[in-house]
Amino acid sequence: MSDAPIVKPVAISGFPEWLPGVRAVELAWLDRIRATFERYGFCSVETPSVESLDVLAAKGETSQEVYALRRLQAEPGDDSGRLGLHFDLTVPFARYVAAHFNELTFPFRRYQIQRVWRGERPQEGRYREFTQCDIDVINVDSVPLYFDAELPRIVHEVLTELNVPAWTLNVNNRKLLQGFYEGLGIDDPVAVIRAADKLDKIGPDGVAKVLVDQVGLTAAQAKSVLDLAAVKASDSAAVAEAVGRLGVKSDLLTTGLDELAFVLDELADLPVGSVVADLSIARGLDYYTGTVYEAKFVDWPGFGSICSGGRYDDLAGSFIRRNLPGVGISIGLTRIFAKLVAEGMINPGPASPADVLVVIPSDERRRVAVATAGRLRARGLKVETYHQADKLAKQLRYANRKGIGALWFPPFEDGKPHEVKNLATGDQTEADPDTWTP
Amino acid sequence: MSDAPIVKPVAISGFPEWLPGVRAVELAWLDRIRATFERYGFCSVETPSVESLDVLAAKGETSQEVYALRRLQAEPGDDSGRLGLHFDLTVPFARYVAAHFNELTFPFRRYQIQRVWRGERPQEGRYREFTQCDIDVINVDSVPLYFDAELPRIVHEVLTELNVPAWTLNVNNRKLLQGFYEGLGIDDPVAVIRAADKLDKIGPDGVAKVLVDQVGLTAAQAKSVLDLAAVKASDSAAVAEAVGRLGVKSDLLTTGLDELAFVLDELADLPVGSVVADLSIARGLDYYTGTVYEAKFVDWPGFGSICSGGRYDDLAGSFIRRNLPGVGISIGLTRIFAKLVAEGMINPGPASPADVLVVIPSDERRRVAVATAGRLRARGLKVETYHQADKLAKQLRYANRKGIGALWFPPFEDGKPHEVKNLATGDQTEADPDTWTP
Repeated sequence: MSDAPIVKPVAISGFPEWLPGVRAVELAWLDRIRATFERYGFCSVETPSVESLDVLAAKGETSQEVYALRRLQAEPGDDSGRLGLHFDLTVPFARYVAAHFNELTFPFRRYQIQRVWRGERPQEGRYREFTQCDIDVINVDSVPLYFDAELPRIVHEVLTELNVPAWTLNVNNRKLLQGFYEGLGIDDPVAVIRAADKLDKIGPDGVAKVLVDQVGLTAAQAKSVLDLAAVKASDSAAVAEAVGRLGVKSDLLTTGLDELAFVLDELADLPVGSVVADLSIARGLDYYTGTVYEAKFVDWPGFGSICSGGRYDDLAGSFIRRNLPGVGISIGLTRIFAKLVAEGMINPGPASPADVLVVIPSDERRRVAVATAGRLRARGLKVETYHQADKLAKQLRYANRKGIGALWFPPFEDGKPHEVKNLATGDQTEADPDTWTP
Repeated sequence: MSDAPIVKPVAISGFPEWLPGVRAVELAWLDRIRATFERYGFCSVETPSVESLDVLAAKGETSQEVYALRRLQAEPGDDSGRLGLHFDLTVPFARYVAAHFNELTFPFRRYQIQRVWRGERPQEGRYREFTQCDIDVINVDSVPLYFDAELPRIVHEVLTELNVPAWTLNVNNRKLLQGFYEGLGIDDPVAVIRAADKLDKIGPDGVAKVLVDQVGLTAAQAKSVLDLAAVKASDSAAVAEAVGRLGVKSDLLTTGLDELAFVLDELADLPVGSVVADLSIARGLDYYTGTVYEAKFVDWPGFGSICSGGRYDDLAGSFIRRNLPGVGISIGLTRIFAKLVAEGMINPGPASPADVLVVIPSDERRRVAVATAGRLRARGLKVETYHQADKLAKQLRYANRKGIGALWFPPFEDGKPHEVKNLATGDQTEADPDTWTP
């Protein structure tokens, strides 16, 4: 033991890490998400964690704060100062598509499960490093609306399989919003979208005040904006009727309504309430241009979004002289998982993946134990070998602590049979390493 | 298409990324590595990518350069400047064990597959971001030597399964080196280890010159140091004999020889040449104190190490007043994989994971196609649905480009049968979505 000063091993706030049993559950979640993405034919892509700051800023202002890099011992000509950690997976994906344009088949659909970083002030439920699970499609010139409906279907399947508490996936359309505002005679629809995006935080009166005082709307215009934001409906006919009643018209509004109707109609077979049109959803500073998505827990409305995404026309075009629109959605894995951990809703798995612990009966028999473990592993079983000839009671206690379900006794002398003890029932029976199953 | 200035979508040197077909192979590798680690009962742990700079520097000088973070819009009280990206997975693991000491079962064995970052000057074969696959064991007070032999066995199994070109896993022991130098009457064995570590780069004459001119050894001492470094042998008897011939004695040397012999003897069942004692291996600036490992490709000796590791007594003790020694080994996944990609030795997989592409015969039959795909997926198949009612030739071409092996034709009108076309053979036959297999 060193006498040097101790460096406290504290976890840094906003950078979550899990104990093995919880991590085992997270890993099972990741496996399921990946399997579902692949079941829909999405291929895996990973991009570097680091992009040039130019790329990260390619779409101008964002709501995300970037961590830039700095070499502790920088040399002349070092480029690290121009590099930053990605804050989402959409911008890097758009850059990837532009970089490899000639080598990809379009429409290009990929999934990407990686960590992202945001230079946020640490606070409850906000992470500075977290894992996102994204699916996106980018195509040349136009993306079929088909994908705007396929993506929520996949997310629905993922969340259903993960058995997370009740959620709603809200859908809206930026063209619908912008067309409505244009129909109202408003000059700066983007300013209205930004203001309306604060509905959750400052309420309708607060938004009305911002719209009148800062954006310069009349009281009547502001009221119409809020009336539109109040529309929520599960089917396209109800949306059309509710918007129609507001008496505003424009071609862009019609286009937006049609696109939204297509998505809702395509997903009409999903359980009622799982996909809902919510015309208050705007995704403020993000780069979306058509369909927008945002999922929330039903019982924790203040918790914020657990999935989000939308259609972007056209992010990849910042990098290459091609028109490369896309649509995507991101599952906020860490956000969801950490919330359920905090609520005590995740049952940790065992601390070891092993099916069985092979006992070391004595130093002389260690190699017999190691060879037995090898035979079991050759059949695909997960097998831990104990590490020394401790008393059997100690080896048993170790297996119990690690949640390993069975203890394997190799023969204590040549010619004797193997035995295995089921630690749930306490039964101990003869067993053959070439046929035994857990 | 925007007229804004183009941001070049170039990949940043030293930050590799792969096309989908290559990524599919990398993913299959990662699955195999993880499966092998779990087959030996190692549990998964992930730690944040970011640690405090104090933690990263806890073991003093290292050979690794750290990327520190910097918030682009820092606020007063912001802690980002004290944070850096981890340069390996051993230091974060030691910190993790210290932080969660009371919640872990010891000996604590985990695997950790994550990216690490090094603020290197970009150059051939050196990455600034890469994935490492580590297995380590940390225990209270002492780690059984058993693990020094189990870890190379696991790495042997992984490299064998991945079918990488011929490699050798070299083993040495720092106690052996230090004991030998002490036996020679050398005061500063660490300085000798550092000099001897440059053997690959500057050759025996270069090392002899450094030892005499800079470390202050006599020519005879320097010769003995080089004689020891020349010892290579596959079995423990040959090592003992070769070292014995050098006529140097010390208790620490005996301990080191015994530990090395234990490892070699335990692994004697592996193919000859796969694990070799190489007394030139020192792992220069690293934190190792006993067994050290270093694997290399046989046919690319200048390429450097593809796996490395060793015993550290005691890294976790920098963080907590406990004696927590460990032993671990790291597979340099990106280093190995990128080399094989560069050598043209990786056959890319298909660009899509899908088993089958479901055709959209017409807009009217789109929902039949979507429902058919759903039935196939419910059976666990990987199914892509084409996105619009393009001409069949175009849908077929798309499937071929993406490497999808079969094309599914849902009935073109109700009551007709489904058909599937095998794109390898060209055969088209009736098929039942509830029983068909690829």
